[in-house]
Amino acid sequence: MKNIFFISILTLLSCSENKLGLEKNKTHNFGIVIHGGAGTILKENMSDEMELQYRNALKTAIKVGHEILKNGGTSQLAVEKSINILEDSPLFNSGKGAVLNSYGFAELDASFMNGKSLKAGAVSGARKIKNPISAAIKVMENSPHVMLSGNGADQFAEQQGLEIVNSDYFITKRRKRNLEKVKLREVNAKKISNKLNYDEFYKSQLFGTVGCVALDKHGNLAAGTSTGGMTNKKWNRIGDAPIIGAGTYANNLTCAVSSTGWGEFFIRTVAAFNISALMEYKNLKIEDASSLVINDKIGKLGGNGGVIAIDNKGNVAMEMNTPGMYRAHMNSEGKLLVKIYKDE
Amino acid sequence: MKNIFFISILTLLSCSENKLGLEKNKTHNFGIVIHGGAGTILKENMSDEMELQYRNALKTAIKVGHEILKNGGTSQLAVEKSINILEDSPLFNSGKGAVLNSYGFAELDASFMNGKSLKAGAVSGARKIKNPISAAIKVMENSPHVMLSGNGADQFAEQQGLEIVNSDYFITKRRKRNLEKVKLREVNAKKISNKLNYDEFYKSQLFGTVGCVALDKHGNLAAGTSTGGMTNKKWNRIGDAPIIGAGTYANNLTCAVSSTGWGEFFIRTVAAFNISALMEYKNLKIEDASSLVINDKIGKLGGNGGVIAIDNKGNVAMEMNTPGMYRAHMNSEGKLLVKIYKDE
Repeated sequence: MKNIFFISILTLLSCSENKLGLEKNKTHNFGIVIHGGAGTILKENMSDEMELQYRNALKTAIKVGHEILKNGGTSQLAVEKSINILEDSPLFNSGKGAVLNSYGFAELDASFMNGKSLKAGAVSGARKIKNPISAAIKVMENSPHVMLSGNGADQFAEQQGLEIVNSDYFITKRRKRNLEKVKLREVNAKKISNKLNYDEFYKSQLFGTVGCVALDKHGNLAAGTSTGGMTNKKWNRIGDAPIIGAGTYANNLTCAVSSTGWGEFFIRTVAAFNISALMEYKNLKIEDASSLVINDKIGKLGGNGGVIAIDNKGNVAMEMNTPGMYRAHMNSEGKLLVKIYKDE
Repeated sequence: MKNIFFISILTLLSCSENKLGLEKNKTHNFGIVIHGGAGTILKENMSDEMELQYRNALKTAIKVGHEILKNGGTSQLAVEKSINILEDSPLFNSGKGAVLNSYGFAELDASFMNGKSLKAGAVSGARKIKNPISAAIKVMENSPHVMLSGNGADQFAEQQGLEIVNSDYFITKRRKRNLEKVKLREVNAKKISNKLNYDEFYKSQLFGTVGCVALDKHGNLAAGTSTGGMTNKKWNRIGDAPIIGAGTYANNLTCAVSSTGWGEFFIRTVAAFNISALMEYKNLKIEDASSLVINDKIGKLGGNGGVIAIDNKGNVAMEMNTPGMYRAHMNSEGKLLVKIYKDE
């Protein structure tokens, strides 16, 4: 009897300790991951100065979101504000410095998803919105729709009081040169529009995205993605970035994901949601689910790119099948990782 | 020894019989399912004449696809040709007779996916393409992209030699009246754009889609969806129909799915791919996976609509959480089912 009593007390103590431990975890385990695009990013093609610029920009962007999370702010706000920094930087293919379409101007795509409400918003083919991710969030919050496009997206953003800019704002000299190079390459190689056998140089000029996923102190996940899409794109092409399930997905049950890479393959494999489904339906860990989608599903179809993902415990994955992906991670303890190349 | 020999012979016979049986199945078990939209379709609001028109149109459309399958044609061709019939009919919200946006013209969305190649194509916000599903297939086959939108989609379709029509072609008196009613209702009810509490009348005027899924004699699946979206839609809204994973998905490993209903909820739940993921990752049957997505995932968020799905054995699901869905099914034996109301 004495023994049973003793064991019961121990069990009670251990239970309450577990409970406290869990609650402690729940309150404190937050984290944020950002990416600035995956692709043929090679050390030998990168000057030290350029590399430093990228690392500093990633650091600045992730610290903004991390500060919000540390102060008890929402993952939604952290994702928006970190992406805004990347959109405003001419280094990345989103907002200012976005790649140019075949007519020489930027067409911007972005999407956002809230893991608690499972609400989502997106804009595609916007031409005047300074910060497309903020417009995606406004679509989610202040319209009955998930996805707006073209002029309609610009009009809605303007009605919502977001900053509207002239199309020249987005254009940089670097992207103009990229467009010229890609057009020349297409003419020289007589590339036919239905051939996807782009060479490495060509691919390195085509893509790029920015994205952010975060878990806040309240246990809520959020994901966002913003991009200018493909250099020299035609026919108002829409890639994976503004598509919920392909470029962006968040669900408090599982994880938050933002994709980057050759968008067509991410659409066909429903990449972002696929990672969540592998976790929810097959109990895969976030690293295994991300690796399976990037290397197995996308890789086997001939696609390439990467994802960042964070689960509802704060575990993260930064998976790619390309030589590099601009990326950074900060956890609850404030430990910062900034990486560019695959093997570093 | 004699016994063992006898058993071996029996096993061999049974194996080859199984093999033959399977091959026989593989060759002969084909099927096709179509839908013409889900919603508040009630017997008391439908004249006998109108009901007959719908049933006849569904019958005509499914027979075209079934004939192709019976003659050994591909599921891709069957899906395209059956949907073309529904697009050309003014009864359904796609192609001719599509609902009108707030400016009074049709903006058409469509998507297609091939379950063997996992290739896909889509158009959104098209205004001049007579048969949007055919344009989606051309995007898949003759462009490096999955999704084209707006003017770009129209231009691409024209370059591909598809039939281009004046925007008046799509407009019917019935849809003009619907638009007026919905606009009046919005003004009277002072509906705020971010409220989703549409009443039943309102909802019945808003949505509609057509879609088709098929399994051919070669064991290949295909899915397609085509729609005018929501009556009175603004800001170049894009619904689930042109989004791979939400409105359309096909994979020979699992099934082919086409969605219809309140698109925003189908995007947020990644409905079409979700059914496939539940089959692939949780071994759910097609009926159970479809029911779980429509009733549990979409229903619990407050959304409504339906799906049609066919798996790689020819099993089908026609699931809805609305009072009705225009739908039809034909199997290998040529057995035809045409249904409108949920409980029939």
